[in-house]
Amino acid sequence: MIKQGLHYVFNPKSVAIVGVSTKGVGLQQATATVFLESLLSCGFKGKVYPVNPKGGEISGLRVYPNIKDIPGAVDYVICGISAPQVPQLITDCIAKGVKAAHIITSGFSESGTEGGKQLEQEISLLARQSGIRIVGPNCMGVYCPEMGLSFGPDFPKESGSVAVISQSGGNAFYIIREGFRRGIRFSKVVSYGNACDVDESDLLEYLACDSDTRIIAAYIEGVNDGRRFYRVLKETAKAKPVIVLKGGITEAGARAAASHTGALASSSKVWDSLLHQAGAIRVCSLEELVDMVVTFSRLSLPSGRDLGILGVCGGATVLATDDCISAGLAVPRFPTKIQDKLEGYLKKGSIGVSLNNPVDLSDQGWDISYDCAKIMLDYGGIDLLIFQLPLGIFSRFSAGIRSAIISIIEDVIKIHKESNKPTAVVIHSLVSSKTYQLALDCERKCCDAGLPVYHSLTNAAKAIARFIDYHGQRRRMLEES
Amino acid sequence: MIKQGLHYVFNPKSVAIVGVSTKGVGLQQATATVFLESLLSCGFKGKVYPVNPKGGEISGLRVYPNIKDIPGAVDYVICGISAPQVPQLITDCIAKGVKAAHIITSGFSESGTEGGKQLEQEISLLARQSGIRIVGPNCMGVYCPEMGLSFGPDFPKESGSVAVISQSGGNAFYIIREGFRRGIRFSKVVSYGNACDVDESDLLEYLACDSDTRIIAAYIEGVNDGRRFYRVLKETAKAKPVIVLKGGITEAGARAAASHTGALASSSKVWDSLLHQAGAIRVCSLEELVDMVVTFSRLSLPSGRDLGILGVCGGATVLATDDCISAGLAVPRFPTKIQDKLEGYLKKGSIGVSLNNPVDLSDQGWDISYDCAKIMLDYGGIDLLIFQLPLGIFSRFSAGIRSAIISIIEDVIKIHKESNKPTAVVIHSLVSSKTYQLALDCERKCCDAGLPVYHSLTNAAKAIARFIDYHGQRRRMLEES
Repeated sequence: MIKQGLHYVFNPKSVAIVGVSTKGVGLQQATATVFLESLLSCGFKGKVYPVNPKGGEISGLRVYPNIKDIPGAVDYVICGISAPQVPQLITDCIAKGVKAAHIITSGFSESGTEGGKQLEQEISLLARQSGIRIVGPNCMGVYCPEMGLSFGPDFPKESGSVAVISQSGGNAFYIIREGFRRGIRFSKVVSYGNACDVDESDLLEYLACDSDTRIIAAYIEGVNDGRRFYRVLKETAKAKPVIVLKGGITEAGARAAASHTGALASSSKVWDSLLHQAGAIRVCSLEELVDMVVTFSRLSLPSGRDLGILGVCGGATVLATDDCISAGLAVPRFPTKIQDKLEGYLKKGSIGVSLNNPVDLSDQGWDISYDCAKIMLDYGGIDLLIFQLPLGIFSRFSAGIRSAIISIIEDVIKIHKESNKPTAVVIHSLVSSKTYQLALDCERKCCDAGLPVYHSLTNAAKAIARFIDYHGQRRRMLEES
Repeated sequence: MIKQGLHYVFNPKSVAIVGVSTKGVGLQQATATVFLESLLSCGFKGKVYPVNPKGGEISGLRVYPNIKDIPGAVDYVICGISAPQVPQLITDCIAKGVKAAHIITSGFSESGTEGGKQLEQEISLLARQSGIRIVGPNCMGVYCPEMGLSFGPDFPKESGSVAVISQSGGNAFYIIREGFRRGIRFSKVVSYGNACDVDESDLLEYLACDSDTRIIAAYIEGVNDGRRFYRVLKETAKAKPVIVLKGGITEAGARAAASHTGALASSSKVWDSLLHQAGAIRVCSLEELVDMVVTFSRLSLPSGRDLGILGVCGGATVLATDDCISAGLAVPRFPTKIQDKLEGYLKKGSIGVSLNNPVDLSDQGWDISYDCAKIMLDYGGIDLLIFQLPLGIFSRFSAGIRSAIISIIEDVIKIHKESNKPTAVVIHSLVSSKTYQLALDCERKCCDAGLPVYHSLTNAAKAIARFIDYHGQRRRMLEES
């Protein structure tokens, strides 16, 4: 039987949730009841049918005892019942004409038991024979804000252009929430667990052609079919940037991955060359994954690597310069005429002030940051500007200091809107609740204005340098072909 | 003239602050008025004399027009007046019998101007001729909680055993505040700027013999006398761990350092071999510096590298394992008997649960984390335990979830107190104000109980592996000598 596409995984008109509890949500997260709550709070546009043998009512919805009792058609089923019951449910789904099912439940191949492996083979076979598509088992399923599909009640309702596939549900949670904070919105996110049917290659193939998706990020612990994966990844990476984090690159990590999603091991070197040859962007941590997504989503490509650094703390500025150079960017010295222009605003000899690149506003910079940034960006020798704000250096967060910091951020936003050269913002050293709250406020302003925001200069420099490298390679590839 | 020691830099009985303003503090941080405020709020034990030609009163203290007008002896002077006025002030200090002076003021050699360089030479010569010791210029000076000396009004009043020397004031702010959050308390912190008199070697020599100091961390942009520095560092590193961050390791970074503290350039390789041969611990970022300080202060030495990882999110646990192995730790597989014991508590086949090392409590672990941690630490094949809590995975922070998370932390603290093997805690993925506040609460509990706390597993693994390496090298050195 030829496999159906993933249309109904992302575009169901009706969803049944099997295993909801009328007792409400407890402490556990991966339950059918939490999925129902998420679907309702995300505003799912189609019909929702809770299912539980006991019947009753939940959130104003009638609870059906069995999927067969649902009067209308059901496109998509979310399954939160125990593993041994799953094959029967899938059989019922097939009988009902269900197009796709997401299985939250664990206790399959990742358990390492013979019984678990056999159950997984059983549902995998049912999928192959019937054509029903199965996401999972052992996963959080689909977040597709356009349709109102969601596995977190707090996920944003707005759509964006970033797609994420992640075997791990926890890592998907992190990417969505940290991405949200950084101004990222998503087209589709899939936590696909053990991948007994829908796998990384199916998902990449779908997303490569998905017009809502501009950037793809993936957290992968293992692949079902290495050759197909390489081929699909290479095709996908031709169409759009694909950022990949491989979990389980060490032997012990692979063992952990096997207990987590039943993934098979393969060495870091194999992955390195595979991803490189396929044209994907390999990252080594979730933080780096989000940094790359932020860069690809929000930074426009600078015309070169010559960087202006503007900041407010001498020591941080020195380290920032080292970080940028080490990452492969350049921090060119300013000619005298630019330094003279800056001196018109910044009092040379004031504590911490530096006029050369990096430019350090010290605590003189409250009302001149716009002018200094403008002088730097207007200078032909600079391709982009990094503005850094280490909040941990401030002793007092009086209303005056707070509004002075906000006004610096507003100046940076103003110059970002006016200049045709890109600007990035790094807000770091958040040492207390007050600094954290102020950072969130500043980040929100920057994100709303379309600026890329980072939490560490080291990471920002690396991400920006890799972004420039990527585009350089693409250009060379296109020239060669 | 033989230089006096630094006794009065850290133990003045009376302090005059020159250049205070009776108009109160503004937005600037590095002013004499902020220093006065810091001294008073930190509870300085000696006499405090504000100085300003206009006289008057500030914070209930009489303001003297000139240092010469102060009736009693003055041990220490903090100077916040403009650079050209500084030599005259130092001359007055010498006449008054002042033992040490801290010059906040900038506009000296770091300005790059001939005038600035000359002024610095002038005060340096005055110090050499008279024996008065000068900290600075262009710096934040001394924080010594035991004496109540401080340059931040919010700095903790309790003393500790960590000393920090930092050319940069901003970096010193970060280290103190981030350290405070992580349970670190300080013996002495010195921001020493351009080092026209008191330099890195003087400070290290003093701190090597300082019985209040157990660990030393340094942020250095340049050294005055390379040979002496190497000799002193080597002697100091024999006595106690010395953690060094070198700012300005790239050409552009060195240029930034020159504008920041007038430091001279030297290559990263030179520093690498110098620090290695001297037995110091080189770090590459402020975050790593604090992580190493936390590790040396709070982790007891594990008897080996075999690590147990206990966590609450599958994907994060897989990545954690990769991080630990990559850093040079081992994550041994558990024998069946240990897995069986764990299975007595953890339901195998529940979503996310893993019984092998790493152990993943998933969301089943609310009331069994103590038992699971105990099984792991009681097992002879494990030398230490890392507990990780990625807060970003939780969807709702209901009172129930909050108290469940706090109770897991209390379980970890309980096992830490009972076991003779060390435990470290990593609380990460703080994606919102709520996660941040909860992290702070959890961190505080852990810090109060003496646990080392980290913000990232990658960084925790690196710091712990380096800590074990350091002690291994020390042991070999002692055996050889």
